[in-house]
Amino acid sequence: MKDFDLSKTVRKAKQASRKLASLSTADKNKAIENIAVGIEKNREKIQEVNKKDIRAGRKQGLSDALLDRLALTPERIDSMIAGVRQIKQLPDPVGEVIDMKRRPNGLKIGRQRVPLGVIGIIYESRPNVTVDAGVLCLKSGNCTLLRGGSEARHSNYLLVDIIREAIRDYLPVDAIQILRDQDHSLVNNMLKMDEFIDVIIPRGGENLIKMVAEESTISVIKHYKGVCHTYVSDQADKKMALDICVNAKTQRPGVCNAMESLVINRDLPADFIEELLVTLQKAGVRLKADAEMRNMMIDSPVKLEVAKEDDWGTEYLDLILSVKTVGGLDEAIEHINRYASNHSDAIITEKYGEAERFLNEVDSAAVYVNASTRFTDGFEFGLGAEIGISTERLHARGPMGLRELTIPKYIIYGQGQIRS
Amino acid sequence: MKDFDLSKTVRKAKQASRKLASLSTADKNKAIENIAVGIEKNREKIQEVNKKDIRAGRKQGLSDALLDRLALTPERIDSMIAGVRQIKQLPDPVGEVIDMKRRPNGLKIGRQRVPLGVIGIIYESRPNVTVDAGVLCLKSGNCTLLRGGSEARHSNYLLVDIIREAIRDYLPVDAIQILRDQDHSLVNNMLKMDEFIDVIIPRGGENLIKMVAEESTISVIKHYKGVCHTYVSDQADKKMALDICVNAKTQRPGVCNAMESLVINRDLPADFIEELLVTLQKAGVRLKADAEMRNMMIDSPVKLEVAKEDDWGTEYLDLILSVKTVGGLDEAIEHINRYASNHSDAIITEKYGEAERFLNEVDSAAVYVNASTRFTDGFEFGLGAEIGISTERLHARGPMGLRELTIPKYIIYGQGQIRS
Repeated sequence: MKDFDLSKTVRKAKQASRKLASLSTADKNKAIENIAVGIEKNREKIQEVNKKDIRAGRKQGLSDALLDRLALTPERIDSMIAGVRQIKQLPDPVGEVIDMKRRPNGLKIGRQRVPLGVIGIIYESRPNVTVDAGVLCLKSGNCTLLRGGSEARHSNYLLVDIIREAIRDYLPVDAIQILRDQDHSLVNNMLKMDEFIDVIIPRGGENLIKMVAEESTISVIKHYKGVCHTYVSDQADKKMALDICVNAKTQRPGVCNAMESLVINRDLPADFIEELLVTLQKAGVRLKADAEMRNMMIDSPVKLEVAKEDDWGTEYLDLILSVKTVGGLDEAIEHINRYASNHSDAIITEKYGEAERFLNEVDSAAVYVNASTRFTDGFEFGLGAEIGISTERLHARGPMGLRELTIPKYIIYGQGQIRS
Repeated sequence: MKDFDLSKTVRKAKQASRKLASLSTADKNKAIENIAVGIEKNREKIQEVNKKDIRAGRKQGLSDALLDRLALTPERIDSMIAGVRQIKQLPDPVGEVIDMKRRPNGLKIGRQRVPLGVIGIIYESRPNVTVDAGVLCLKSGNCTLLRGGSEARHSNYLLVDIIREAIRDYLPVDAIQILRDQDHSLVNNMLKMDEFIDVIIPRGGENLIKMVAEESTISVIKHYKGVCHTYVSDQADKKMALDICVNAKTQRPGVCNAMESLVINRDLPADFIEELLVTLQKAGVRLKADAEMRNMMIDSPVKLEVAKEDDWGTEYLDLILSVKTVGGLDEAIEHINRYASNHSDAIITEKYGEAERFLNEVDSAAVYVNASTRFTDGFEFGLGAEIGISTERLHARGPMGLRELTIPKYIIYGQGQIRS
């Protein structure tokens, strides 16, 4: 489609966003239910079109992992539909009024949640993002401008067609649009349209996120990597430390809240450290340790590879773990604040003062005492679905749910007050 | 100073920010009191150095308005000191825990306010910003990297010296630094240092803000212009409408929350409209109206100039007012959402439904019923001092106080929970 008009598209989005912002929750929910119905009705067509993407991807030589992400199996379509209905059930954050107070001059001043406006979502491969992100934005009263990866374009275009058809009776259809042209220069142009787009959320690898942050004149909510640490204090409950470390590392190693680095207090009994490392090794984890730990374990059955400087701060997303030895809490916090990605980090300790200091001083979006970092997730935190996990320091840190897709504006009830 | 090292400066800031984040309120308050004392002790020196800036500015041919902004009179130094002590009195937002809940698995999950980190402040002329912004950031646990206008550099450098000397006993001195080199390329470099600087707040004219938004890879909190509207409904209390409009336009026309555009319902009695416009005119306001209003007032003593398309959306910052005629609430809201700068807009009405619709549908940081837009201000809203008024849609809308210089991170109290 040579005649795709980006400027017209973003203008339509901005216009639709005004209407969407003041629609009732009931209308939004009816539209969302209709989306679930629409996907259900079109499941065969979706799979057919998805196969076209997969055939093209195979021809292009995409890796099996990428092809797998691309695939919309019947089970994935089921869970897409279930996801849509879950979002429908979530409370609507729009209109919530917080902090209402009466000032000495009688003005009643509060803050009312409103949508962010038009959200640009730039993402790779997984076509389910089209539906997840689109419906989350819609429920929170935001318009979405989607730009998916070219390898998923047929699936994405069809899903957007289905959504637009489904919402037509309740909402402006331009609440959801997708860039129907895969030209790369379009993304660069889109990232400069700060007059019409209010936020950009990139979802994908580090290179995509860096490119977006550099090019965009629009505010970007970044979701960088998760280099999560667990510090096992000499005051830790040993059984608990063992269970948590194994869970954090091995339960699902390929995700951003999995542990990538184990920080161990050197005053722990050597036989416990050995047990911990052996257990991880038996679970299939390759261990890369500093010199001190390698020396400590020199006569043990634990096989420790050399951790190089690069290993600290590396997100393996695999059954590989870096192991750092420290002398105590200060050193642990310093190491973590230096090498972590400000995502999720945990301490295992029974000492009250250590727990509190760790919570206060570790500079990450989610800081844990005595639990697996694997819990960092919108559902687990009770937000419902999430649009991503922010590693930004502005607007939102950690899992972003519907609330984080809104922002409070001030509303002021007066009775004729003037300023003197 | 040819040897100013920006890269070293930002690294020191990042380091200091770690310490600053976990300092006690008591220590921060002692340091802030010492800043007040330090400014008091050095007032003669400050005036002397400030005169150097003014002499240089005069030689350079700066306008009287700019020279006035630059000047640190004894009264301005008094109010600088008073401002510092006011910030000391404000509650410290750091450490506040909100939304703490227990999840079904027993995890206690809450959100604890932490500083944003390192804040870069890029500003023009007024040297009091050096102290105001620096102390607000310090109280909220943030490190500040200041970059002031070259015309105020002697004053700014001295004020930063005084602050650093004053805080030395309680805080890392690098909590506050100023770029001691006025080279323009430094700003561009600073705006790319997203590894060390967490937020950029520009304070100055539109050109400065645009440049910063375009160049920066760091998140920017913009404070654009204020094109504030007041809509007088046909359901308005007439005496109230008169008082509010005169106040909003004339009480201090040069500021961002002053009214720039009056939106009038055509069904109001012509003699009331005439009275309103005559009153504004008598207060020295030049009126630029649309054709309908000019026709309506053709036989009246009101002198109406022609409002051109450009006048809608113009921030006069002067005793000039654009006047738009509308048929009702819908048209008023549409006009305001189209031309306002999303700062502060008001409706004057006695009709309940109109008031609520205006509050819900006008897309501005502060939306008023029956009050002057002049109240949009950190002090008036009860936040204490403000670092600015955000016209962004992310992180904060409207006046930004200490709370808006922090962000909640998640803290999680576990008892050994692992994910299944």
